[in-house]
Amino acid sequence: MKKIAVILSGCGVYDGAEIHESVLTLLALEQNDLDYQCFAPDIDQMHVINHLTGDVSEGESRNVLVEAARIARGNIKDLAKAKESDFAAAVLPGGFGAAKNLCDFAVKGSDCTVNPDLERFIKAMAAAKKPVGFICISPAMIPRLYGAGSKLTIGNDKDTAEAIEAMGGVHMACPVEDIVYDEGNNLISTPAYMLAGSVSEAASGINKLIAKLASLLK
Amino acid sequence: MKKIAVILSGCGVYDGAEIHESVLTLLALEQNDLDYQCFAPDIDQMHVINHLTGDVSEGESRNVLVEAARIARGNIKDLAKAKESDFAAAVLPGGFGAAKNLCDFAVKGSDCTVNPDLERFIKAMAAAKKPVGFICISPAMIPRLYGAGSKLTIGNDKDTAEAIEAMGGVHMACPVEDIVYDEGNNLISTPAYMLAGSVSEAASGINKLIAKLASLLK
Repeated sequence: MKKIAVILSGCGVYDGAEIHESVLTLLALEQNDLDYQCFAPDIDQMHVINHLTGDVSEGESRNVLVEAARIARGNIKDLAKAKESDFAAAVLPGGFGAAKNLCDFAVKGSDCTVNPDLERFIKAMAAAKKPVGFICISPAMIPRLYGAGSKLTIGNDKDTAEAIEAMGGVHMACPVEDIVYDEGNNLISTPAYMLAGSVSEAASGINKLIAKLASLLK
Repeated sequence: MKKIAVILSGCGVYDGAEIHESVLTLLALEQNDLDYQCFAPDIDQMHVINHLTGDVSEGESRNVLVEAARIARGNIKDLAKAKESDFAAAVLPGGFGAAKNLCDFAVKGSDCTVNPDLERFIKAMAAAKKPVGFICISPAMIPRLYGAGSKLTIGNDKDTAEAIEAMGGVHMACPVEDIVYDEGNNLISTPAYMLAGSVSEAASGINKLIAKLASLLK
């Protein structure tokens, strides 16, 4: 069975990995006969959000790897240890954690930088022409990782698309149930909860993204 | 669309609601054309477990409702406000939170007591003959809620089954992909991660449980 690296960014849509997207990704990988290993960076979250009120929990600190372990039921490794040679492909679910902990797009927009361990790993995957899937807001970092001209979607949010284009990315509007495939860079993206109004809507695009990923590995 | 109450117990298998089971439950409800509302008790978790190491995080405290809001993307209500008349059915995903926060079976075994808001709500659902689904370890509280002779499964764990029988429950061994239906009490249970080795194995039983629930509402 081919092994896929799944990069998580915490546990919870507002300060970490989007939980539904993460679980739907793992389920779709299994349904396509693909094995996986979860990773997350061993760093503090940008902040902690109370998901009931939407407020920042002042003075509270949580670790991205420790919280992401909740989604992975403890079976997760430090992203610093991810080696390109161990994996056939990678997938990044979304959630604000992708734009707050894996890069700082949420606060710096087109001036963002990517976590160095993630940058090293994904650039090695790209150099080896291995497919990588980006879900929800995580495609915002694609121009930083793949350079100018890389094609991607985050759905149809105008401001976000403009920030991505300012970095040299080519944003393609895309409905929730569809994907954008950049053949030259062998990368796939889908809007998921950038547009989804329900778990099953998010699943429609994620299932298509993972099926495409699986087809690229045949 | 009929509305189902989904009772969460935090966010994470070792101290809260099992995340995969919770998301699979929401997805299956949507796929069966059922609407849902998530609830959780507004109480402190029994404790916080570091899901990377498995150790108790000494001195740390988290609220069950606030953490469960991560799974529900903020759309969740205090369990104290759940009214039987608003719902056609209820579902309780598992995870240790069901046995630590919704009741204290994890520490007291057959001497356990159930959270008073949960007890009030489920007993009202039972009195109205509305179907309730229990997943993973959450069936351990069934004898307390439905009385002696209630039929249920938590899979095949001998010690857990014995504690349940000591409370007057009738434990039925059940494989991961199947359910046990107690027709007299109109309640359904499935082992999920008491036995599952993967997300898709957990999904097999949960999908069957929700399909049965949907069939009982037709």
